[in-house]
Amino acid sequence: MKNILIVGCGLIGSSILRAVHNKKIFKNIFVYEKSKKNISIIKKFNIRCKIFKNLKDITTNLDLIVLCTPMSQYSNVILQINKLITEKTIITDVGSTKELSSKNVKRKLKKNTTWIPSHPITGSEVSGPLHGNKNLFKNKWCVLIKEKNINKLHLLKLKSFWEKLGSKIIFMDSKQHDFIFSITSHLPHLIAYNLVKTATDFQKQKNYNLIKFSAGGLRDFSRIAASNEIMWRDIFFSNKKNMILAINLFVKNLNSFKRDINLNKNKKIIRKLIKTKKVRKQIIFLKQDTNKPDFGR
Amino acid sequence: MKNILIVGCGLIGSSILRAVHNKKIFKNIFVYEKSKKNISIIKKFNIRCKIFKNLKDITTNLDLIVLCTPMSQYSNVILQINKLITEKTIITDVGSTKELSSKNVKRKLKKNTTWIPSHPITGSEVSGPLHGNKNLFKNKWCVLIKEKNINKLHLLKLKSFWEKLGSKIIFMDSKQHDFIFSITSHLPHLIAYNLVKTATDFQKQKNYNLIKFSAGGLRDFSRIAASNEIMWRDIFFSNKKNMILAINLFVKNLNSFKRDINLNKNKKIIRKLIKTKKVRKQIIFLKQDTNKPDFGR
Repeated sequence: MKNILIVGCGLIGSSILRAVHNKKIFKNIFVYEKSKKNISIIKKFNIRCKIFKNLKDITTNLDLIVLCTPMSQYSNVILQINKLITEKTIITDVGSTKELSSKNVKRKLKKNTTWIPSHPITGSEVSGPLHGNKNLFKNKWCVLIKEKNINKLHLLKLKSFWEKLGSKIIFMDSKQHDFIFSITSHLPHLIAYNLVKTATDFQKQKNYNLIKFSAGGLRDFSRIAASNEIMWRDIFFSNKKNMILAINLFVKNLNSFKRDINLNKNKKIIRKLIKTKKVRKQIIFLKQDTNKPDFGR
Repeated sequence: MKNILIVGCGLIGSSILRAVHNKKIFKNIFVYEKSKKNISIIKKFNIRCKIFKNLKDITTNLDLIVLCTPMSQYSNVILQINKLITEKTIITDVGSTKELSSKNVKRKLKKNTTWIPSHPITGSEVSGPLHGNKNLFKNKWCVLIKEKNINKLHLLKLKSFWEKLGSKIIFMDSKQHDFIFSITSHLPHLIAYNLVKTATDFQKQKNYNLIKFSAGGLRDFSRIAASNEIMWRDIFFSNKKNMILAINLFVKNLNSFKRDINLNKNKKIIRKLIKTKKVRKQIIFLKQDTNKPDFGR
């Protein structure tokens, strides 16, 4: 592949930019970014790339287009890049939900075009190009959405692209993807936001400075609840069906915990708490975290 | 103060042991510990202390007794140490709730005795003496429960003890303490346990390997949900009233989030997500965490 266009150069986009530059995967790197602040940061990377503030100004044919904007901007972007797409162009994204966003993209995309959604499982609570880094994808899962009638050559090319960035590839369909990540990522983020909201509500009610004592647990949730609001609104809205299922089961389980606490159900509580400990062991075994104890930072 | 007795030598007890040894605060250090495994670990510290497997074997008068066992063992311990207590003895603990545990202690404790509960705001998801360290209390809050008719000289001595270990002291009454920590610590832990439980329930239902993809959020909660089950059962039971209040508000807020998501309430969601971001800034300002971005470990 010769020419890549990175659409949106925040945390993920700028990490792709650094990685493809570092690995010398493309001859020409094109970047679309409209924020002046972001552009001035990207320029300081000293990476040979062409930055466009307007998608209309791009005239080159492209081999790979990676959408790295918030998902709510996809439809608008697609309308502007249709003219750049040829039969050999692969279009992908890095969004966190797949079913609805993919449906929207396909509705706007011109016919006979290869659209293969990607989801690199990486990131942080910070956003913007300043925090990007070339190793962001290294040893991380990248989900590729494999649908019927997929262009197999293009799929292999996209797989190879992410592998060059260090990712481990896994194929899913969009339904399966959205279900899995509603549990492992979207619900945890919503819960973190909700916990911090609940703490501030109590702080207002009682006029105590609670936040001052957040080292005992709240702190960790507040980090997750500091993630980008546009990105997370888009995720919650576009994975609505699974979010509601997940919230309902979460509330059911929490009410059951409440009953157990209220009635001093000793054995039941201990059994539940021990089970979750086993999950932690699995997570460490699967190298999703280290077993280094955390005493705060 | 000359003689200290540390009752229970797990993560916190062994950290006190290391710290008082390091700072040379006492002439004699006595440790009560019944677990053979823990005793063999403590012996390897090479700290001059007397380890007792039976509280009845201690015959020395004590200046300070620190209860570091799970709170459910306090009543039993108190009955055995009553004979060691003189008018000059200060008895304290390190438990995470205060109202009920203090009531239980006072019921068993012999008359005219100084009981001043402490709560050092520190710890980790790991337990046991292997993970203790002498700096565990450094720059951390330690709450002292100040009740009416308190022995002021003893209170100053206890304050000075924790300050020598590096803690910053704050005085509260037990009601206020239990309310504040139900929000900043106890609810977050219950929520983490509940989130991991919910994820495993879904995993069972759908037969997907969700845990494999826990890097996107679930991982962080699983760490908190790996904390000691006896300790947390005791906390949940002994702070029942506040826990139920907190769970109820949490569920109310979560249902409101669910409605906003279901109805695509754009502005409302964005407003909520931005507010929680501000709390994060406060937490960093108050030095309860650093602002170093977290990309996973």
